[in-house]
Amino acid sequence: MAEIKVAVAQLNPTVGDLVGNRAAIVEAMAQAKHANCDLIVFPELVITGYPPEDLLNKEGFVAQAASVLDEIAAMTSEMCVILGAVVSADRAGLSLAGARDARESGMAKPAALANVAAVLRHGRVEQLIAKQLLPNYAVFDEQRWFVPGEDHGSLIDLKGHHVGVVVCEDLWSADGPAKQLQALGAEVMVSINASPFARGQQQRREDIARARLGQGSCVMVYVNQVGGQDELVFDGGSFVMDGTGIVTARAKLFEPDLVTVVIDDDLAVEADEAIEAMGDLASIYQALVLGTRDYMTKNGFRDALVGLSGGVDSAIVSVIAADAIGADHVRCIAMPSRYSSDHSLSDAQELATRLGVILETIGIEPAHTAYESMLGSALGQAPTGLTEENLQSRLRGVLLMGISNATGAMVLTTGNKSEMATGYSTLYGDSAGGYAVIKDVPKTLVYELCHYRNQLAIARGERAPIPENILTKAPSAELRPDQRDEDSLPAYEILDPILAGYIEEDLTAEELIAQGHDPQIVARVCRLVDIAEYKRRQMPPGPRITAKAFGKDRRMPITNGFRG
Amino acid sequence: MAEIKVAVAQLNPTVGDLVGNRAAIVEAMAQAKHANCDLIVFPELVITGYPPEDLLNKEGFVAQAASVLDEIAAMTSEMCVILGAVVSADRAGLSLAGARDARESGMAKPAALANVAAVLRHGRVEQLIAKQLLPNYAVFDEQRWFVPGEDHGSLIDLKGHHVGVVVCEDLWSADGPAKQLQALGAEVMVSINASPFARGQQQRREDIARARLGQGSCVMVYVNQVGGQDELVFDGGSFVMDGTGIVTARAKLFEPDLVTVVIDDDLAVEADEAIEAMGDLASIYQALVLGTRDYMTKNGFRDALVGLSGGVDSAIVSVIAADAIGADHVRCIAMPSRYSSDHSLSDAQELATRLGVILETIGIEPAHTAYESMLGSALGQAPTGLTEENLQSRLRGVLLMGISNATGAMVLTTGNKSEMATGYSTLYGDSAGGYAVIKDVPKTLVYELCHYRNQLAIARGERAPIPENILTKAPSAELRPDQRDEDSLPAYEILDPILAGYIEEDLTAEELIAQGHDPQIVARVCRLVDIAEYKRRQMPPGPRITAKAFGKDRRMPITNGFRG
Repeated sequence: MAEIKVAVAQLNPTVGDLVGNRAAIVEAMAQAKHANCDLIVFPELVITGYPPEDLLNKEGFVAQAASVLDEIAAMTSEMCVILGAVVSADRAGLSLAGARDARESGMAKPAALANVAAVLRHGRVEQLIAKQLLPNYAVFDEQRWFVPGEDHGSLIDLKGHHVGVVVCEDLWSADGPAKQLQALGAEVMVSINASPFARGQQQRREDIARARLGQGSCVMVYVNQVGGQDELVFDGGSFVMDGTGIVTARAKLFEPDLVTVVIDDDLAVEADEAIEAMGDLASIYQALVLGTRDYMTKNGFRDALVGLSGGVDSAIVSVIAADAIGADHVRCIAMPSRYSSDHSLSDAQELATRLGVILETIGIEPAHTAYESMLGSALGQAPTGLTEENLQSRLRGVLLMGISNATGAMVLTTGNKSEMATGYSTLYGDSAGGYAVIKDVPKTLVYELCHYRNQLAIARGERAPIPENILTKAPSAELRPDQRDEDSLPAYEILDPILAGYIEEDLTAEELIAQGHDPQIVARVCRLVDIAEYKRRQMPPGPRITAKAFGKDRRMPITNGFRG
Repeated sequence: MAEIKVAVAQLNPTVGDLVGNRAAIVEAMAQAKHANCDLIVFPELVITGYPPEDLLNKEGFVAQAASVLDEIAAMTSEMCVILGAVVSADRAGLSLAGARDARESGMAKPAALANVAAVLRHGRVEQLIAKQLLPNYAVFDEQRWFVPGEDHGSLIDLKGHHVGVVVCEDLWSADGPAKQLQALGAEVMVSINASPFARGQQQRREDIARARLGQGSCVMVYVNQVGGQDELVFDGGSFVMDGTGIVTARAKLFEPDLVTVVIDDDLAVEADEAIEAMGDLASIYQALVLGTRDYMTKNGFRDALVGLSGGVDSAIVSVIAADAIGADHVRCIAMPSRYSSDHSLSDAQELATRLGVILETIGIEPAHTAYESMLGSALGQAPTGLTEENLQSRLRGVLLMGISNATGAMVLTTGNKSEMATGYSTLYGDSAGGYAVIKDVPKTLVYELCHYRNQLAIARGERAPIPENILTKAPSAELRPDQRDEDSLPAYEILDPILAGYIEEDLTAEELIAQGHDPQIVARVCRLVDIAEYKRRQMPPGPRITAKAFGKDRRMPITNGFRG
């Protein structure tokens, strides 16, 4: 036995980009080889990026991904490489008993694939260990494509040390592969993951790793993907935990990283000091920044457009955008209507000045007037009430989308989760755009994030970006005279806990009332959430930060007769 | 042994509407009892409607649905009732080995439920038979909520006849429960289903029933749900097949129905003459009509708005709308721009006259002019090119949505599948609305449906609704002078087969070229499909009629680096 040096490669792959992902893997391998590592570990499905979704239904895609695996294997020599890949279930040695002949059913052919940890060494694929527990809940659909693995694979001999490998979810089962591998004598447990961010998730990962190691002396090497992918943000936070449950090394959060550790003969871990875990608000803020940056850059956008209302939502979105892609790539537009207050413009201007972004002002009155006559002919009168409110919001959407079309900048929408939930937004109006930066952030948390970001600036000796007046005035959509959000919705301090219970915890109205919430408010809020499903179905994607986001995390029928 | 009388209750439940669905079940039971039936069978998950999706994650919903089951059971006496229901996996006697403690993972708790056929008799639940094969492909997510059944249940004794029961997918496996129940001596096989429509699906169902019966003398009683549910249309078409493989009774297609048959001592089936199967175009057309009607009525809408361009897409949509909800509930709006041709207005007027729907004309020039100056200030010049084209489309969207807001009518969008696929549409413009009636209908099929509907009218002695000129002129969006679709897209006769291969068959560009398609056209079309994913994500739902529709049937990443 001898000490072994391990590289933890926390990459930011792009889903489907087999060429780019291969290049990033090969580069990390070169770095690890240069550092005389004995082992390098990569995240789950790193060749395809996670989640590749229905790209996996394309046989041609899977074949190309498998070729990349073989090409990488051919490059290996002494240093062992463990990475996540997709191969046919057949190649992974899995039986297909019970797999349906889908052609017969007239449906698209389902894939029979395996989500594997591939062990590469000496120019070949030494072992394929298929994931056994395939998550098929929340944002995950793995049983759509993958056949479950049937055993935990063999221990890998690395200079006399026994190394076991588990794929993501397989770590979470108390009696699963991780336990079995330890019983066989694993001294190092490699856990490859694509684990998305949510509040508190990093702590849960480290807790579960500690629980799985139990009282043994096994070292855990946990590698996670980093980066934004549509609705998901992967926060990285890869770590190495020694047999006593202490995190001895931790990769950066929300950034690619390559960390090396040395595991000595008696399984002590030598590493540079572990980066500290990140606080709750800081991690949420960074998730929003990374989600926005990656959605834009991976889709080829350099510039963002934000409609600045002078309110708190568009304020935090423009600050996040500036942090994500640079203030010089953010263009803000104020679009006052006949009902806009003076302070909405002055607050927007003050914010833009502090942020160092362009602010242009384009009033919507000419279009508003035009539509009064155009709609007047169809309605017999000029639009009033909700029709006029939605109209103004849509006229702004048309303006932003026009500038977007002409300049190639992506419109970032500014609706928060409380609004998405209750339908307090206008379809094709304020919800129009490419990415909905705070769609999973409840309004009360929006305020917390604003204060967090201001304090961060002050701590850095910078000026707080968000003017105090934006944080203290009463929220208003300003779509009619003297309008306030609280005319239409309960106060956000009352609303947000009800929404969290109804959405994130799937409680019924009855259960919420039993918890002590006001029965009438609960009934109204639940009804609002239910009937706004059709709006949410047409919203842009945005980063998930809570235990349950709108989107593929919550698949509610639009047509839904349940009241409760 | 004696003859037995069986009622096949093809209901149209509404997802989540436990009260309404219970009432429909109880009414059908009363009818069957009045007709002296020995057995009545209902579709899969009829109490909740199919698919209840993440309503199943609400414990309170599942508990209420289980209460409805018990209430219905309490009403039974001699007549046996077989219906689809959801109960806890525990109640269905299923083991939960391997079920993850989801709280630990920080994710929403996944349900541990069973999708059962409940056998009710003598005031109680006699047997719960859990579905074993849980489809988790295409539009199905059943492994998200359900634990698989472990055995096929016991045969039911009905006046000395042995009756076996299978739930939907369990019929499709050659070695599955259907075979095992026959080996035990089943003489009548009850198959309860929620099988959505797609082209050719009814034939596949009858073929598979015939294949499962094999050479035996077993009678198949196949009951299916009918009705529209968001993206899905259930076509009904319940049938009874005798031991020789002949369909002796068939329920109506696209309508609720209650059919009774008598199975005599030697398993001969007596029934009224079976309704004929429906042709391909007729069934597609009816699926679109039912999908539209149910989406509107189940969501509380009585009236529809359609923007009439004088083109073939808005023509077929307005005809479908009139067939779905009545011409007097359809309001059509022509919204000419400075680039509209004379014939677009005259063709629209001719169509409206033939259909008997209101047509109003509201030009968008005032808004167009207003935005030229508003956008001009931001862009340094009046909008041109794609920006001006999209602008016009969005100005129409704003107009229709304004009328919708003021009148409560639902906007039906008119984009076809060829346009959805290639992104030949404007986000928040022509794609703005509540239901996208022909989003799964390729352009070439739109023409076929127009001809079908015209011929149907002529066969009925009515005037063909769609004027010849609409069917013969070259397709154009009319967003710039002399524009034609074929300036931007390949001819639809060339485009549609490529799209079918790329989307419905998941072929790669390489594979399509190998089939003989033009390499440059293939490369361009595949690229167009890939980069339009972000638009499709924000489109309204519409009825699925092909083997793979956009929506939950095809879950492609937006951020996607794969080119192939």
